[in-house]
This record gives sequence, C-alpha cells and structure tokens, in this order.
Amino acid sequence: MKKTDDHLAWKTVGRKRLNDFRIFTMYQVQRETAGGLTGTFYEVDAPDWVTIIPHIMDDKLGSCFLMVRQYRHGSDEITLEFPAGIVDGGEAAKTSAHRELLEETGYRAESLTLIGEVSPNPAFMNNTVSTFLADGLELIREQELDEHELIDIIPIPVYEVIASMGQGEYNNGVMMSSMGFYLRWMNLIKTNLGD
Amino acid sequence: MKKTDDHLAWKTVGRKRLNDFRIFTMYQVQRETAGGLTGTFYEVDAPDWVTIIPHIMDDKLGSCFLMVRQYRHGSDEITLEFPAGIVDGGEAAKTSAHRELLEETGYRAESLTLIGEVSPNPAFMNNTVSTFLADGLELIREQELDEHELIDIIPIPVYEVIASMGQGEYNNGVMMSSMGFYLRWMNLIKTNLGD
Repeated sequence: MKKTDDHLAWKTVGRKRLNDFRIFTMYQVQRETAGGLTGTFYEVDAPDWVTIIPHIMDDKLGSCFLMVRQYRHGSDEITLEFPAGIVDGGEAAKTSAHRELLEETGYRAESLTLIGEVSPNPAFMNNTVSTFLADGLELIREQELDEHELIDIIPIPVYEVIASMGQGEYNNGVMMSSMGFYLRWMNLIKTNLGD
Repeated sequence: MKKTDDHLAWKTVGRKRLNDFRIFTMYQVQRETAGGLTGTFYEVDAPDWVTIIPHIMDDKLGSCFLMVRQYRHGSDEITLEFPAGIVDGGEAAKTSAHRELLEETGYRAESLTLIGEVSPNPAFMNNTVSTFLADGLELIREQELDEHELIDIIPIPVYEVIASMGQGEYNNGVMMSSMGFYLRWMNLIKTNLGD
C-alpha cells in the first residue's frame, strides 16, 4: 500500500485461528490504522481456486462450452457452470486446472491459457481464483469424481451461455467473474459505449 | 428440482448451527441422495448483499461510475469497486441499495433498477447478491460510515472500469458479476461471436 493510503489502510497486529472447517479456516485478525482506530475482523483462509472454460466444437451445436451441471450445497440448487475446483497444496494453478478438467469431464486440454486472476471476495476471503481458457480438448477417459461429486457434462453453445449467465441454473457469481475475463480476452465487449 | 435430477440431487435430513461470526453463521448440514449416498457439508448462512452501479456524468471525465476505494480485510489490499453492502434483516434489497449508496457516497439516486441477482458462491454460501443500476445521482450530504469504514469516492470513466475489471486494484470478483449484468443490460456484449 502507498504512503498516501494511510487514511484507508489497516495494519495487522494480531491473528488467531478460530475454527477449521473442511472448505476453509476461520481466523480473527486484530488491526489498527495510522489514525488510531482499532478493530477485530474475520478472515476466511481458503485455498486458491481455479475455473476452467473448456471450448469445444460440437458436430451439431457448433462452438460450445463444456458445462458441468451439479447440485450445490450452499444454494441447495442445481447449477450449470464452468468446471472448477481447488488448488491442492503446493500445486501450480495451471496443474490444478488440468487435473480438475480431467477429473470432472474426462477431457484433456491441449492448451490452458490463464486469462485472469481475481479475489472471489476481498471483503473476507484471502484467496484467489484463476480462470483458464481450455482449448484442444480430447475425451481420453471417464470422469473420476470425489465420493460426493455427482456431475453431468453438457456442451452448450457459447452464445447461449453468455446470454444466460447469472440467470436460472447459471446461478454462480464466481463463474460470472470468469466470464468477464473471457469476454475481454475474446474481444467481445463493445468499446463504443454510445455516450 | 426435477424428478429427472435424482441422480444429481441431495436432500437435507439434518442441519446444525456451528458458529456465529459477525459476517455469517456457519452450519453443518446432513444430506443424502436417492441413490443412497450420505454426507456432511458446510453451509455459510449469510445475509443477502447488494451492489450498486452508480452512473454519473462528470464535467471533465464524461460518463463515469462513482467508485469506492477502500481497504479490504479478506485480501489485505486496497480495492476499487462499486459501492456495496448488506441487506439488513427485513429490508427490501432496493431499500438497502438506496441506503448503502447514500451512506458510502452521500449521493441519492433518482432511480435504482435491478439488473441481476446471483448466488455469490453456491458451493457453500446460501445468499444472493442483487445488482442495481443507479441513475439520476445527486450529492445531498456527507458520507455516513460505520465506525470501521474508511472510503474514498472517485468518479472513473465507464470505459476505464470495464477495461480494468479484475486487474490491479479492481480485485473484486463479486463486482465482476455485477459488471456482467451491466454489460448485458447496456447491450455491450457483441453477439457476433465470429465462429
């Protein structure tokens, strides 16, 4: 942080582990400002995540994304999303992306391109989600899912996914951040804003 | 969920409150499938959130968003984002959006239009974030911040925010989901995908 940000910044002066959950660990953090404010805040310590945008040419449907359809335990709903997963300890994000794509779909990607990295929720999470564009997909084996994973794989036309993001079963905000990176990467955002 | 989704769906058979944190409450949920799987999962019970996209015409900069610049306790960084906040118990999301915009910026919006609702993280969060487009802004008073909020208000050209989302200080994935709704609402996504 810049010196000129002293009126905004907090400095960490203490950090205590509160609870280990399977998906993240909860910390309590003590912080203070240059101006003399003090406070206690929560920090969700989570592993980094990856989202993979798998592009395929379907014989009937044309240019498609390979989407996963699955039950989600937070929203208690079935969602349609890009394949995604967790970066295992010590693993490079790109390795995780290859692994998760293969496990969830059975497809191997010839190329994975990092198109963006963002904090999924900087207000209380300390992790990063990396988005990879996957091309040159080849079906090489069956899904290899965790004990509690139940996932359908569906190719859906690119234009349909873009038009549907954030609506109906496309109810995943993290996927929308990946879509933002995709739209910019593919030059699909109009630059003439009409104002 | 549809009957044909029995191979994906989990049914809740038990739910236990684990910990109350200030920002959310942690639950443990027991679930089972029609196929006989059983499991225990975590659910983050959080209030709904709102994000406000405040559009203004700046004398020098032209068409701008009113952005907030603040320290974030999860990422331990300063971010540039749209104003956002929490839906208080019993409050309508639109009321929260009016209130948060006024508190964080001092601006009152003549109109707030709901342009999208999405789960910020269906994997473990049970809440929804609603995005409102704010127009007809008028500065009517000073900021009215919570004890620990320190926020700078900066008008930034619309095209610059779109080009920067998810990069540098624009490091907020939730804001990117709101931007996805904005791009579609304003018809800023190219429909000729070139494939």
